[in-house]
Amino acid sequence: MKVAVGRPGTLSGLLLRIGQSLFAASSIAFMVSAFGFSNYTAFCYLIASMGLQALWSFGLACLDFYAMWIKRDLRSAVLVSLFVVGDWVTATLSLAAACSSAGVAVLFDRDVDYCRTYIQHACHKYEISIAFAFITWLLIAISSLVMLWLLASV
Amino acid sequence: MKVAVGRPGTLSGLLLRIGQSLFAASSIAFMVSAFGFSNYTAFCYLIASMGLQALWSFGLACLDFYAMWIKRDLRSAVLVSLFVVGDWVTATLSLAAACSSAGVAVLFDRDVDYCRTYIQHACHKYEISIAFAFITWLLIAISSLVMLWLLASV
Repeated sequence: MKVAVGRPGTLSGLLLRIGQSLFAASSIAFMVSAFGFSNYTAFCYLIASMGLQALWSFGLACLDFYAMWIKRDLRSAVLVSLFVVGDWVTATLSLAAACSSAGVAVLFDRDVDYCRTYIQHACHKYEISIAFAFITWLLIAISSLVMLWLLASV
Repeated sequence: MKVAVGRPGTLSGLLLRIGQSLFAASSIAFMVSAFGFSNYTAFCYLIASMGLQALWSFGLACLDFYAMWIKRDLRSAVLVSLFVVGDWVTATLSLAAACSSAGVAVLFDRDVDYCRTYIQHACHKYEISIAFAFITWLLIAISSLVMLWLLASV
């Protein structure tokens, strides 16, 4: 079976990578602008993980753009293996970061009522940042599955 | 490329499934025995997710055992597709549960020093339970990759 959507060196692949970079960057921006985020390890880890994700996806977006520019197919086994490893590592780190931050945000918002009594405004920003991190993960998960599929059928 | 380890209906596949069930059950046991776990959403979610994982893996272990007993190969495309979807859903839920609980445990232990001042004994149990959840995820991740690979090469 062949997969057409999201392959490296195609327009859909390029759009996926750009989406990943933009959502990861937005997640970082919202988290950095929230008061007191640096007191919590999970939120700092979210920034680190989204930073790595943004760099990786932006690098691959440039590569996709270059491949489309010179009209070259990026389907060599070595290159796809490299993409698979990078995509899976960053996808796992992104999901881990989004979930650990979501765990802390739910604790603040529901379990200990910290948001209502102290930092309502910052809590909203934490939650938006985490939502963007989950969208980033969803996009990188699509890329990862397509890449693994490509590698299996090379 | 063909994968030999972890295929359904083989001894390695059966051992993987038994390992997943045992570690998921141990994770639940440690969490349930820890004082005050039910006050925290992330820990309740960990129990629900590990419960689902234990049931799914135990069901597939029985199927693997039956296939080995009657010496039948479980490589039909429909069956492997079903395993792939189930494995990926439970693997993602397990990682999400382990990470969200780990986020809360790190918050208790490092960020707010809650463990040292209040519930040192319960914190140890939370941490052991989360460690078991991560081991469960590692084992189900191996199964998921093998299944996806099998499906791609069917």
